[in-house]
Amino acid sequence: MREPILLTPGPLTTSATVKQAMLRDWGSRDAAFIALNQRIRERLLALAQAADSHVCVPVQGSGTFAVEATIGTLVPGDGRLLVLVNGAYGRRMVRIAEVIGLAVTSLSWPEDETVDAQALNHALAADQAITHVAVVHCETTSGILNPLQDVADVCARHRRSLLIDAMSSFGALPIDAGQTPFAAVMASANKCLEGVPGVGFALIRREALEAAKNNAPSLSLDLYDQWQGLEANGQWRFTPPTHVLAAFDQALDEHAAEGGVAGRGARYRRNHQILVEGMSALGFAMLVPPPLQAPIIVTFLMPADPRFVFAEFYDRLREKGFAIYPGKLTVAASFRIGCIGRIGEAEIRAALAAIGETMREMGVASGAPALRGESERHE
Amino acid sequence: MREPILLTPGPLTTSATVKQAMLRDWGSRDAAFIALNQRIRERLLALAQAADSHVCVPVQGSGTFAVEATIGTLVPGDGRLLVLVNGAYGRRMVRIAEVIGLAVTSLSWPEDETVDAQALNHALAADQAITHVAVVHCETTSGILNPLQDVADVCARHRRSLLIDAMSSFGALPIDAGQTPFAAVMASANKCLEGVPGVGFALIRREALEAAKNNAPSLSLDLYDQWQGLEANGQWRFTPPTHVLAAFDQALDEHAAEGGVAGRGARYRRNHQILVEGMSALGFAMLVPPPLQAPIIVTFLMPADPRFVFAEFYDRLREKGFAIYPGKLTVAASFRIGCIGRIGEAEIRAALAAIGETMREMGVASGAPALRGESERHE
Ligand SMILES: Cc1ncc(COP(=O)(O)O)c(C=O)c1O
Ligand SMILES: Cc1ncc(COP(=O)(O)O)c(C=O)c1O
Repeated sequence: MREPILLTPGPLTTSATVKQAMLRDWGSRDAAFIALNQRIRERLLALAQAADSHVCVPVQGSGTFAVEATIGTLVPGDGRLLVLVNGAYGRRMVRIAEVIGLAVTSLSWPEDETVDAQALNHALAADQAITHVAVVHCETTSGILNPLQDVADVCARHRRSLLIDAMSSFGALPIDAGQTPFAAVMASANKCLEGVPGVGFALIRREALEAAKNNAPSLSLDLYDQWQGLEANGQWRFTPPTHVLAAFDQALDEHAAEGGVAGRGARYRRNHQILVEGMSALGFAMLVPPPLQAPIIVTFLMPADPRFVFAEFYDRLREKGFAIYPGKLTVAASFRIGCIGRIGEAEIRAALAAIGETMREMGVASGAPALRGESERHE
Repeated sequence: MREPILLTPGPLTTSATVKQAMLRDWGSRDAAFIALNQRIRERLLALAQAADSHVCVPVQGSGTFAVEATIGTLVPGDGRLLVLVNGAYGRRMVRIAEVIGLAVTSLSWPEDETVDAQALNHALAADQAITHVAVVHCETTSGILNPLQDVADVCARHRRSLLIDAMSSFGALPIDAGQTPFAAVMASANKCLEGVPGVGFALIRREALEAAKNNAPSLSLDLYDQWQGLEANGQWRFTPPTHVLAAFDQALDEHAAEGGVAGRGARYRRNHQILVEGMSALGFAMLVPPPLQAPIIVTFLMPADPRFVFAEFYDRLREKGFAIYPGKLTVAASFRIGCIGRIGEAEIRAALAAIGETMREMGVASGAPALRGESERHE
């Protein structure tokens, strides 16, 4: 079966040149490799205008490893974490805090609503013991965009440290350290930055990291130690994923060539708009109201037509060369289509054509969902 | 500067075909990718004759992540770990246990001596509270090979669980689950299996893992959860390093084509012998007595000649296309040369020629070390 176009939240379709950057071996102590890592770290800081205030600490593994490492390193044993939850990735941060033994509470909203800065304001006023707040920027579960600026402003007013899971937004949606105060932003190479999976990173306020020695309940996921190692001689403490990092360096070149965050975001917004228009024309309804939706991934409600069987729909699309994504909602049957990765208008239009064709093959007349009321609002 | 031959303990020189396996993107939920992972896991078990008794759990990150994940998952909160230490990787396991809050003790030997099964026997007889024993198979710090069978026999006799860090030996030196009882063997894709870095794994006795639910003090490094996820639908809980895994699959093909553990080990032994003979002819002395040395990496004592400055030696060799490795010893100044990765007699002979040439350039007449007594024994 030929290589598919990946319309998912990751792993994504990457450029041929990013993959070709993996065609050589690097010595992890070589000057050229040390320079490559330095370049990556500096460029990631620059993307968030954070070079003066923050440091960049990469960590081996998937995005979740970067999230766990950041929470474990920054929240001290006697700290207290409040997580704002409106999807699976918020819930995952609660779970991480529980497993590593931190005091944690959460505020929760339905998956098709954003988190609410006013509720946060009340919660912080009511509980002085909360030291850190965690929020997901784009909740990939639904595709919803949370009001990051409002959340950051409330945290700043109450002098609590904000940890932002920007896994699925970093590099495509702006985050400006000067404007949006944060203790840490966590992301990975393999979403909007269009590298390959295998490394994540956090941008961490320098003073917060300096104060975090011996906090982490893990050696591998201790970002203070990881940072100290990199600062000492530019080398990683433990074997780095050299090929993945070479691909990441190339991906950052291509990100810059596309016009950085603005350019990357513009392409994704175009992808998103074409996708939403095309799917609406086929009758599909979205979970999230359009004004709340990030141009990253879209959740569609399952069509009412009983001839629409998702597993068959998925397989037929896959045979036509497109991999979409199952839903992750707790509230409604759904599936997701991503707008990110090295894809553009041509790929989205081809996917829409394949979806239409697949519906005809399956005898599904319309993508309209069964649910009335709530969901129709967003069609 | 051209791509170097990596004479290190990793990252290593890999084949062109292993790297080319990274030239495509994989959907992490695609049937073909699920099959690829299944294939990797089954072949790793087969390499240790462990398919009937153990399960294979891969984990994102470097080898240390696999070691920490295994210790954290298998040793319960009320367990007690005894680590046998004769180098940095043994010490690292002690550190991991301390950081994750386990009760840990150690027995230590000098870096040029193997651990001693008799001392272990006494320690286990004396302390019934010890539940787990950890040992490094080939201590890459020095290149010494520990007496794994003796250690395993003692652990079995005392009914304690054995955890083996086989990072730098797995795939080249035999470990047979039928003959050498172990609870877990930890290794990574990027040593003797000649994949690229970014994923590690553990082979874990099925009953030990079944009993390990909720042990791990980490979400990312919970191998019980990771295993359950893979067993449920063949998918990883969190984004897998797809390209690294595709390279690993290809690397395992090439391992099998070379004759498996026996074939791979034979090539490394040849590399090792040519290296040791050539270096001895240049006057260099080894730290570890030849009978104790694994054919993986060799530690050479720093020459006495004051014109031998290691940084210059390293750089000049690097310019000639060879990356060697600094020492990691606490006891003596040294450097290391690896025998593993996609290299053979031609590369080792070329490296020896480059070393001889570099010595002439630097005006170093002989590689003989300053130390008398101890070290001369091993020349
Ligand atoms: C918002 C968010 N957080 C965390 C993650 C977890 O990343 P990973 O799957 O790389 O562990 C994802 C993955 O899609 C995500 O979208
Ligand atoms: C015996 C041993 N254990 C553990 C490790 C750690 O592996 P990594 O550097 O991939 O974390 C190494 C690396 O060389 C090793 O040789």
